[in-house]
Amino acid sequence: MSDKLWGGRFTAKASEWVDEFGASIHFDQKMAAEDLEGSIAHAKMLGKQAIISSDESAQIVAGLESLQQELTAGNLTFDVKNEDIHMNMEALLTEKIGAVAGKLHTARSRNDQVATDFHLWVKHRLPHVMSALTDLQSELLSLADKHAGTIMSGYTHLQHAQPITYGHYLLAYFNMFQRDYERFEFNQKHTDILPLGAAALAGTTFPIDREFVADELGFSDIYHNSLDAVSDRDFALEFLGNASILMMHLSRMAEELILWSSYEFNYIELSDDFSTGSSIMPQKKNADFAELVRGKTGRTYGSLLALLTTMKSLPLAYNKDMQEDKEQVFDVMDTVIASVKIFTGMLNGLTVHEGQMLAATQDDFSNATELADYLATKGVPFRKAHAIVGQLVLKGIQTHTPLQKMTLTDLQAAAPQIEADIYQILASETAVNRRTSLGGTAVTNVKKEVTRNYKILEERQ
Amino acid sequence: MSDKLWGGRFTAKASEWVDEFGASIHFDQKMAAEDLEGSIAHAKMLGKQAIISSDESAQIVAGLESLQQELTAGNLTFDVKNEDIHMNMEALLTEKIGAVAGKLHTARSRNDQVATDFHLWVKHRLPHVMSALTDLQSELLSLADKHAGTIMSGYTHLQHAQPITYGHYLLAYFNMFQRDYERFEFNQKHTDILPLGAAALAGTTFPIDREFVADELGFSDIYHNSLDAVSDRDFALEFLGNASILMMHLSRMAEELILWSSYEFNYIELSDDFSTGSSIMPQKKNADFAELVRGKTGRTYGSLLALLTTMKSLPLAYNKDMQEDKEQVFDVMDTVIASVKIFTGMLNGLTVHEGQMLAATQDDFSNATELADYLATKGVPFRKAHAIVGQLVLKGIQTHTPLQKMTLTDLQAAAPQIEADIYQILASETAVNRRTSLGGTAVTNVKKEVTRNYKILEERQ
Amino acid sequence: MSDKLWGGRFTAKASEWVDEFGASIHFDQKMAAEDLEGSIAHAKMLGKQAIISSDESAQIVAGLESLQQELTAGNLTFDVKNEDIHMNMEALLTEKIGAVAGKLHTARSRNDQVATDFHLWVKHRLPHVMSALTDLQSELLSLADKHAGTIMSGYTHLQHAQPITYGHYLLAYFNMFQRDYERFEFNQKHTDILPLGAAALAGTTFPIDREFVADELGFSDIYHNSLDAVSDRDFALEFLGNASILMMHLSRMAEELILWSSYEFNYIELSDDFSTGSSIMPQKKNADFAELVRGKTGRTYGSLLALLTTMKSLPLAYNKDMQEDKEQVFDVMDTVIASVKIFTGMLNGLTVHEGQMLAATQDDFSNATELADYLATKGVPFRKAHAIVGQLVLKGIQTHTPLQKMTLTDLQAAAPQIEADIYQILASETAVNRRTSLGGTAVTNVKKEVTRNYKILEERQ
Amino acid sequence: MSDKLWGGRFTAKASEWVDEFGASIHFDQKMAAEDLEGSIAHAKMLGKQAIISSDESAQIVAGLESLQQELTAGNLTFDVKNEDIHMNMEALLTEKIGAVAGKLHTARSRNDQVATDFHLWVKHRLPHVMSALTDLQSELLSLADKHAGTIMSGYTHLQHAQPITYGHYLLAYFNMFQRDYERFEFNQKHTDILPLGAAALAGTTFPIDREFVADELGFSDIYHNSLDAVSDRDFALEFLGNASILMMHLSRMAEELILWSSYEFNYIELSDDFSTGSSIMPQKKNADFAELVRGKTGRTYGSLLALLTTMKSLPLAYNKDMQEDKEQVFDVMDTVIASVKIFTGMLNGLTVHEGQMLAATQDDFSNATELADYLATKGVPFRKAHAIVGQLVLKGIQTHTPLQKMTLTDLQAAAPQIEADIYQILASETAVNRRTSLGGTAVTNVKKEVTRNYKILEERQ
Repeated sequence: MSDKLWGGRFTAKASEWVDEFGASIHFDQKMAAEDLEGSIAHAKMLGKQAIISSDESAQIVAGLESLQQELTAGNLTFDVKNEDIHMNMEALLTEKIGAVAGKLHTARSRNDQVATDFHLWVKHRLPHVMSALTDLQSELLSLADKHAGTIMSGYTHLQHAQPITYGHYLLAYFNMFQRDYERFEFNQKHTDILPLGAAALAGTTFPIDREFVADELGFSDIYHNSLDAVSDRDFALEFLGNASILMMHLSRMAEELILWSSYEFNYIELSDDFSTGSSIMPQKKNADFAELVRGKTGRTYGSLLALLTTMKSLPLAYNKDMQEDKEQVFDVMDTVIASVKIFTGMLNGLTVHEGQMLAATQDDFSNATELADYLATKGVPFRKAHAIVGQLVLKGIQTHTPLQKMTLTDLQAAAPQIEADIYQILASETAVNRRTSLGGTAVTNVKKEVTRNYKILEERQ
Repeated sequence: MSDKLWGGRFTAKASEWVDEFGASIHFDQKMAAEDLEGSIAHAKMLGKQAIISSDESAQIVAGLESLQQELTAGNLTFDVKNEDIHMNMEALLTEKIGAVAGKLHTARSRNDQVATDFHLWVKHRLPHVMSALTDLQSELLSLADKHAGTIMSGYTHLQHAQPITYGHYLLAYFNMFQRDYERFEFNQKHTDILPLGAAALAGTTFPIDREFVADELGFSDIYHNSLDAVSDRDFALEFLGNASILMMHLSRMAEELILWSSYEFNYIELSDDFSTGSSIMPQKKNADFAELVRGKTGRTYGSLLALLTTMKSLPLAYNKDMQEDKEQVFDVMDTVIASVKIFTGMLNGLTVHEGQMLAATQDDFSNATELADYLATKGVPFRKAHAIVGQLVLKGIQTHTPLQKMTLTDLQAAAPQIEADIYQILASETAVNRRTSLGGTAVTNVKKEVTRNYKILEERQ
Repeated sequence: MSDKLWGGRFTAKASEWVDEFGASIHFDQKMAAEDLEGSIAHAKMLGKQAIISSDESAQIVAGLESLQQELTAGNLTFDVKNEDIHMNMEALLTEKIGAVAGKLHTARSRNDQVATDFHLWVKHRLPHVMSALTDLQSELLSLADKHAGTIMSGYTHLQHAQPITYGHYLLAYFNMFQRDYERFEFNQKHTDILPLGAAALAGTTFPIDREFVADELGFSDIYHNSLDAVSDRDFALEFLGNASILMMHLSRMAEELILWSSYEFNYIELSDDFSTGSSIMPQKKNADFAELVRGKTGRTYGSLLALLTTMKSLPLAYNKDMQEDKEQVFDVMDTVIASVKIFTGMLNGLTVHEGQMLAATQDDFSNATELADYLATKGVPFRKAHAIVGQLVLKGIQTHTPLQKMTLTDLQAAAPQIEADIYQILASETAVNRRTSLGGTAVTNVKKEVTRNYKILEERQ
Repeated sequence: MSDKLWGGRFTAKASEWVDEFGASIHFDQKMAAEDLEGSIAHAKMLGKQAIISSDESAQIVAGLESLQQELTAGNLTFDVKNEDIHMNMEALLTEKIGAVAGKLHTARSRNDQVATDFHLWVKHRLPHVMSALTDLQSELLSLADKHAGTIMSGYTHLQHAQPITYGHYLLAYFNMFQRDYERFEFNQKHTDILPLGAAALAGTTFPIDREFVADELGFSDIYHNSLDAVSDRDFALEFLGNASILMMHLSRMAEELILWSSYEFNYIELSDDFSTGSSIMPQKKNADFAELVRGKTGRTYGSLLALLTTMKSLPLAYNKDMQEDKEQVFDVMDTVIASVKIFTGMLNGLTVHEGQMLAATQDDFSNATELADYLATKGVPFRKAHAIVGQLVLKGIQTHTPLQKMTLTDLQAAAPQIEADIYQILASETAVNRRTSLGGTAVTNVKKEVTRNYKILEERQ
């Protein structure tokens, strides 16, 4: 290969640069702990099965444990010449214990080794995602409890629709995160499977004991097909898919936090910890963190698509394309854990402008449904009731008169069925508190749901 | 609005055309049966709860049942003027039973109605996906059983790696589809939740009975938060995510079916039902259906990302953007059910060229690992064994001599540990059959796995 | 193939159903006109080159022209048994003129035929996209001209930042659509290339004249490599990419239209043609069309990714996967043309609440920058000025006093450089009109830009 | 904010961790050189326009130039406390020249500053992409020239279709990369626009000279609308879209390089520099680099989707979400430049097995079209000719007799029009060389195209 092809901005010698392009050590070193953990279990098993001598096994295990300590202490350095974390660890082990290190790779391959590391890495971190979600859900419950009776406008199409309580609103997100939690819980099932022992693709001729290794590493299942073991990335795709739905949920709440912090809405105020100023406009208090999380939704979707695309049409078993799996998962793992924590923090420090929220329900027409339902209970077919109220609303908008400020005479002119009890019906509080149907926004419902949901969180431990 | 703006290719009057743009009847009529089903349950409940009179309830139910019959008979026609399936059905019902039809919409809104229809639609079809998967898995087992001993080359990086059996290969896909099945099964959990009763967004003041409706419609859970009920599309996203992973699996097998049908591989032959000719080249027998399914992987990913993108940043509760959910799910549902069935049919009619498969393992060097492992069992550290064999392979390639054709002298020159038993070790059959480790390719393993997997399918019924 | 495999919901005979799965006539009939157009040019060329007799050529051309008339009249029906539009047209032609129809396919293949139809289809419609954009840009200019002096709050992070004019805001979108226009214009370059003559993949042995065909069909370029001709879908991907960016722009404006129509902002009101009511809440006036277009952004991104994914890793030349290209492009073409027209209509019928817009700039702190800049011109380093103003704003928020309502004494206490001329500086109008830097929001700038942009549109014709 | 929320794996103090989440210095330091470049131009302009004194301007410029030298020398270190590259640079400058550094930020904002840095960064690198493409295209031409007459099988549906030349095949890719080149060239238009001077969003009251800054920085256009200037990311999306199409092209060639390197095809051999071995299977020579690039196609699509999603629905002007733009573009820039260079290197070191390629065209039926065309020229309608040849091919497959090995009697039995000249017609060489139609695979065509394409490359300089 001619060196001049690699001129320009690439100053490294051609072949070095090419090797670096193929290397993965710059990112797969994140799995260093898992690589050691997997190797220790493997080495113990090799000894137990007399595939290597128990003395050799002990030497290797001791060497690996010593590397574990150095890793924790931050004393290990990796070399791109050794391509990936597996080769780096073998080189470090060899340095430490000599040629016997070469026996560690008996009865395994990098294909099942990397799959094992990656499974372990995700398996170790799913509980972090779940516990971050629990914290966020817990924060939501505490806030919902506090605001079970805080009245605000409910929106559809970003138009005032019907009054709800802020507590009720918060519980909608509790439920979303509950489904997220359940998805990550299910995600564990297909993560918690041991690939090691599949070797390159076909299993091995050595009398290995995979159950022992699974036990050592805490895996509750074992791949029953060696080709599948080295070529399966479903667990990673499930994770990216679940993360995408979770980020979508966060993006929805982010949108509302941003909106509600605006001059126009002024429903809430983020704490200084979670808002930033402007380099040019001293008055600004931006919901930067909500925006950033909303923006990172794109990043997460991108990672999901990236891995789905990479895996498409790959023949069995391992292909180098699959090296692209890790960076996406690593990045999304950081993103979702941090994003969930950011939201917990934002909600924890939130100032709620209850007065502003309530006021917005009092000179709009979000009680129009109350009047229509009132007419319906008096026997007016719903569609007709709807039309009558529509006319009244139109008039009200033109004359800047909310329904509850219209005279009884005017109301009766539109529908003789209307009586004096209508004014109580039209109050936001009434509208909210009469919605006692299961799942409805009534304060009593919200209180009940808070209790029910606390139980869900408690049962988790 | 000036009409001239809408000139050019749009011949309809402006406002008509605009209305059509907003209408959904051209696609949501696919949920016509579900819309009627949901309305019947709602009408019964309204009667039972005395929200409308039992006579009114009976009239409405009778009218809806009559519409059901007409729908089945293919006699219902919908009008774009009535915008969506819900308004169309109400118009048809009014035509049939008069003004009392207007009472059906009491205590519900299009927001919870469309959510209910959509949940029902997916809920009815997930079992079809699962049963199609069961058929495909069953076909795989039958084929794996037949080919438990059919030796072929296993590949990594599309290079001959180690001999495996075709049965073992097929079981890898069995396992992928098993995970797919489990994912769709889990998908049911978040689909099987009743939204009806959430009304527009806040619940209703009418004394509805949501448990009754859930029972009538066969839902096992009920949304406990009205905002969540009308704004949740998680079940649809789960479906699209699961479908994407499934299509990815099919794309991998498709790739291999295409590859293996090529002149160069010639491992298999698709039946005439599943291959097509060329309009210009009479000799062609193309794996069109495998290609088409592989191509449709893109379509499925696209639908997943479409809905994820649409849902991003939407404030609660319902927004018109969400109307975009259905076409994606409808299309993917058809795509995955058909694709799975196509694969079942392709495998069912497959001709396997066992001789060609075996031959490919006999003059390559895919038994190199056997020799390396052999040396390792004789005490040579794995890395050194690997190097020795590497040298032998290089020589073999240069002299066109597979390892099993080299003389014992030559072999021993490379490694004195080698003895005459090596020749048996080097045979493909031996390589396969010595891989008895759990999940390994040995014929006995494959047989055992077929049995174990049949049990999984049986327990499904 | 066993028929029972296809049981369940598929009632058609198995092989029929399979054939339908592979067929494309249900969507590629959209290219019927282009298929006939291409065939006529091909038939003329075959005659001219004496590849078929001139009499045969004339018969075929007459037959095809007769089919053109029937197509226009809506009298052609297609049969799924003939798989695609090409086979259907050949069957219809054969019906009409007998066996000589078989000669039409001389020197071409479905591979170059479908590529030609598809190129023609896109080539015919790009001008529609561009002209719809021109209409929208023209509407924007007219509105910007009218509102060159309409003061509103400019936002960053959805916080009031600095006063701008509504006209200035509208011109930002003019510029986005200008880039969109230029992208579709560039898109023509790679669309406007004739594939016909590439035959199946390798060219043909017949003495064809591709320049003649290109002339007949109005193509300005010809594929110079036959493999590329049948396997290139760049023009479709460029279109989907451009459409995605355009939809992103529309989604941004849609977001603002929705936001500004809210009770809280109340900056604008959409005409009744472009808003819809609620089935349950009579007071609602929803920005449905803006929401729908915003939602369709997802659909468009999905189509882009679908085709990118489908094309990934396809070996040359034609593969059946590529049949998936058309539905995505057809759907997106309809989506973008309609969406752009919807926006033109929405803007055309928009009511702008100038008073509300102005008011929002008068009791906020969006003139804080003015004060900081004022101090900077008096020699205070920018960072220090920023800090001083920050303090004043904080005080103002606490005491509900905008800067322009503070006393000179108070202001001077914070910064002695402040003089009485500050009050004029702090007025929204001053803030706007002093921003005369190129691209700034000053009314004079807006006027100038409107004029400059009208020229751009004029030069288009 | 309660600190305990941030427990678990986050050891940093809560608020620090939150700040780090919001910071961008860990990635935007890649634009350090551009940030300095932009600041120098801005400082010069401020001096020239007397917005700051010429002495202040000189001090600032000197300080910045000194930072440039330290940056080049690798001596600058950034601190996450200063959040982003802009604040870091200001802090470093202040350290160096004192309080006067604060004047640099006069008449600009981070919004227009970051946009300027990002435009500059992309603007500087597009030529690298283009020049890498030129190198690859040049390599393709050199190889195509050498293999203008190397006969191989052309494929459709991965089935042997018709013989082509390897040179012809390579030119198909030349044309794809030519379109890629043109797309990146067009990409420059919307990159090469100066945002600086837009300030936060509305322009500035200072008498700045944007033309001067544009000149200094080499921009050929200036944003004419300040809102657009700070909120436009079209140039980045265009880049990601173009990169996606380019990677798709590379993935197609990668697929073929991998396929053709297989045991079964054996058409080519990659040099040792671009293939790697296996840790367990000594015989393997994997096309790792082709696989890796193919895999990175997913990563690139993912980045495109990420930014499209992030930008969706963002109201004007700047929002923090947009901070997510840079990592995607930085990563894809590295990916595409490296991938193109990898391909240039792979092709440069490629060994082509011409014999194997030719042989594959000699006992298949890829000359069937020749026979059909032969019959067509003898007056047999194409469809009938196709049917006759189909029968002959079927017989040939059953008897393992290629068409050219059948006796004249047998051929004439199928079609009496066949004469003895048919044998020459059926030779692969004839099939290739008779395809002289424009764009056809004939050797003379390939030679001509090589010459024509060299001219295209020459005109580039």
